[in-house]
Amino acid sequence: MELTPAGCRAREVLDRVGDKWSLLVIALLGERTKRFTELKREIDGISQRMLTVTLRALERDGIVTRTVYPVVPPRVEYSLTPMGATLMDAANTLVRWAEGHVSQIDAARADYDSRTEEAMS
Amino acid sequence: MELTPAGCRAREVLDRVGDKWSLLVIALLGERTKRFTELKREIDGISQRMLTVTLRALERDGIVTRTVYPVVPPRVEYSLTPMGATLMDAANTLVRWAEGHVSQIDAARADYDSRTEEAMS
Repeated sequence: MELTPAGCRAREVLDRVGDKWSLLVIALLGERTKRFTELKREIDGISQRMLTVTLRALERDGIVTRTVYPVVPPRVEYSLTPMGATLMDAANTLVRWAEGHVSQIDAARADYDSRTEEAMS
Repeated sequence: MELTPAGCRAREVLDRVGDKWSLLVIALLGERTKRFTELKREIDGISQRMLTVTLRALERDGIVTRTVYPVVPPRVEYSLTPMGATLMDAANTLVRWAEGHVSQIDAARADYDSRTEEAMS
């Protein structure tokens, strides 16, 4: 893998899909089609604005579709496109990895910090 | 998957490993142990400082090890730890996905932008 100038655009794509909120949205829509309010509830801590921005960017990239049902009040649903579905496994793996390694990472950090302090004292 | 307060720390982890530069470093070290200069050359566009910061954060998180060989000039090598190796597949999948979907994403964006312009005119 040589990430030469041709890889530059790929990095821009990676920057977008590697984004924390995008990964979470992709992983959650991988379960099934969801409404905005469901996503908002499931991604604790995301603001209304950040979820809107994330969904719009994913829609523009062709990863998510937004369907508006003309009922009162309007019902808006989000799904993965076929292209988005090909990202799902990778997104899921990363999200699960993060969930499963919090304590190992905490331990590694404490260890690193104590070694660094020792080296400086 | 319900990302309630307990998921908050997982999101912090996700934010770190989902970072574009971290994913690229993990994918490249998944091939084999590499020296700083090799990583720098292979990740076209990364600055010396950003690579240093990324490697140090990954080392602190227990994902990467840094080995210094006491030769002149000192030889410094980076490898994935066993925990880092468990991230490799997901990182690789995301990097490959980004590399392989640049033109589809460009097409989706052009399509989205023309539909949005139409709706506004």
